[in-house]
Amino acid sequence: MAEIFNFSAGPAVLPKAVLAQAQAELMDWHGSGMSVMEMSHRGSQFMQIAAQAEQDLRDLMAIPKRYKVLFLQGGAHLQFSMVPLNLLRNKSAADYLNTGIWSQKAIDEANKFCQVNVVASAQDKNFTYVPHYADWKLNPQAAYLHITSNETIGGVEMFDLPPASDVPLVCDMSSHILSRPVDVSRYGLIYAGALKNIGPAGLTIVIVREDLIGHAAQSLPTMLDYQIHAQNDSMYNTPPTYAIYIAGLVFQWLKQQGGLSAMERINQAKADLLYDYIDASDFYHSPVAKANRSRMNVPFTLSNSGLDAKFLDAAQQQGLLQLKGHKLVGGMRASIYNAMPIQGVQTLVAFMQEFANTHQ
Amino acid sequence: MAEIFNFSAGPAVLPKAVLAQAQAELMDWHGSGMSVMEMSHRGSQFMQIAAQAEQDLRDLMAIPKRYKVLFLQGGAHLQFSMVPLNLLRNKSAADYLNTGIWSQKAIDEANKFCQVNVVASAQDKNFTYVPHYADWKLNPQAAYLHITSNETIGGVEMFDLPPASDVPLVCDMSSHILSRPVDVSRYGLIYAGALKNIGPAGLTIVIVREDLIGHAAQSLPTMLDYQIHAQNDSMYNTPPTYAIYIAGLVFQWLKQQGGLSAMERINQAKADLLYDYIDASDFYHSPVAKANRSRMNVPFTLSNSGLDAKFLDAAQQQGLLQLKGHKLVGGMRASIYNAMPIQGVQTLVAFMQEFANTHQ
Repeated sequence: MAEIFNFSAGPAVLPKAVLAQAQAELMDWHGSGMSVMEMSHRGSQFMQIAAQAEQDLRDLMAIPKRYKVLFLQGGAHLQFSMVPLNLLRNKSAADYLNTGIWSQKAIDEANKFCQVNVVASAQDKNFTYVPHYADWKLNPQAAYLHITSNETIGGVEMFDLPPASDVPLVCDMSSHILSRPVDVSRYGLIYAGALKNIGPAGLTIVIVREDLIGHAAQSLPTMLDYQIHAQNDSMYNTPPTYAIYIAGLVFQWLKQQGGLSAMERINQAKADLLYDYIDASDFYHSPVAKANRSRMNVPFTLSNSGLDAKFLDAAQQQGLLQLKGHKLVGGMRASIYNAMPIQGVQTLVAFMQEFANTHQ
Repeated sequence: MAEIFNFSAGPAVLPKAVLAQAQAELMDWHGSGMSVMEMSHRGSQFMQIAAQAEQDLRDLMAIPKRYKVLFLQGGAHLQFSMVPLNLLRNKSAADYLNTGIWSQKAIDEANKFCQVNVVASAQDKNFTYVPHYADWKLNPQAAYLHITSNETIGGVEMFDLPPASDVPLVCDMSSHILSRPVDVSRYGLIYAGALKNIGPAGLTIVIVREDLIGHAAQSLPTMLDYQIHAQNDSMYNTPPTYAIYIAGLVFQWLKQQGGLSAMERINQAKADLLYDYIDASDFYHSPVAKANRSRMNVPFTLSNSGLDAKFLDAAQQQGLLQLKGHKLVGGMRASIYNAMPIQGVQTLVAFMQEFANTHQ
């Protein structure tokens, strides 16, 4: 087995301990004679797996009882539609903060269903910062305020929330969920594709305050109605059972690591290691404002972009994979989610130093 | 490891050889150092896995080039909405044949979006047969004609198609796809949740004639537009990568078995074994008309339903799992999909004989 570190932005690295357990149990879960993939979602064995996964997620994030936890399909992309289609509640407008590519995708889709008010945009600086709350042009009549608290492509993370308001806060947390504690009670709805910091692609987690659902139009496709999924404990149709099982193993692994406060300390240390080296170097550059640098996705450029291809080739030869930046941003990007061990970041920094020394 | 046979209707048994390969490769796919779950969907490795899966499915079903193959999420339930939302093409009505619970679910959802004409219903005989084509009341102005070619709950399968017509035929093939050859060119659109005869829950396969897509309303949620998925080779958003990988292993396994004609012979032999025993017995009874008996889902009743619980207990003790019939039908149901070996059916019949002898 090749010794590699996988810096993919998603689908992404999973904890080795989780994969080892999944491998051991793949053909026979707990003596059942069945793979989890083969279990009826209505059987007692899978019902127990799903219930445990939900409880562990509730424990990790301290989710209040008045919030429903839904295990859905369709990724953040389907949430871009489901949020306005469910949460407008007879209003016609919604507020969106534009901090980058993923914000823009959410805005483009919401424009199909309502009047979108962009409260602020970081486009003036190529999406390298989060506009300060004092400058947001909020609409007090908005049905909700949508933010993307980590921009996977731009590498911009929001660490501070706007002051509490009666307008429910909706957050795409796909690329930093479970990387640090958040106060769920400050949100009306949180959604996250599992494929970055939770588990396999094909599972989407929605955490929603109960009073916000149940107001969708009768004409809404049933599968797009949060209320239907909530009333059926995410089993209105067959959920992505194996992905839920893997997510559950990740939740248990996170508890073993000490929970989200412990993960935050580790993630902070990993991010500091990489950013501190980049800042101390003349060879590499981080485009993002220091206060808004993502701890999960670290884009950086080489001062000589003519060396990009050589950098990627040399990195790959040393088992440092998927470092190419998104085509919309260029340069490099190291995604260092929960499952990336600090040894991976240390190895990356050592490689970057060596590469800079050789090519300076 | 317990020796069991899993008769679950879905999620359901998978080929042991597929699970063994998945287990062997789980932590390190082909020396990549990565699990398939950890691979970027845009990376060359996963792109190859997805392309091979599509090609193998095209080979197995002899899918003509003018059909797109889509790997989607949301199950048959989401297709119940997507079909009318995409295929109405400025028409206002669609034809539906009602052969059971799954037909009715499709009809109920379509009623949200168009005028549904039920061409015939088997409700008069508790959904135990397929109404003869000569009795269908077709609407020549219908945008399409929807059929459910295997009713998983009722155990009713359609082996003959209606005569060809200009009205596109749309088919929910979830519970018999790949169990026998079908003439894809007779259909406008075929859809199937993977969880019964293909792979893990969370993957939905759509096979659609190209000329039928691209006519959806601008206001349709982007993720519900077949054209968007077709234009992006099912990678508009991140697809359920691991489920696609497992489905691809199943497709390769089916080729090794000799393809769909070979599978049909095996499935016919398995079904005959079980139905012949039931018909020869006074103790067990099949409610379904002989011409329409499903080769995949075999519901049966005990002449003394007071013995149902005892039958299920005794079966479970012998490792014959998930034989309880759906609550809407009662009795028993043995789902004997492609991956159920004939030894499983032989063991079941032997158990049924023994149970009957003991309790007659």
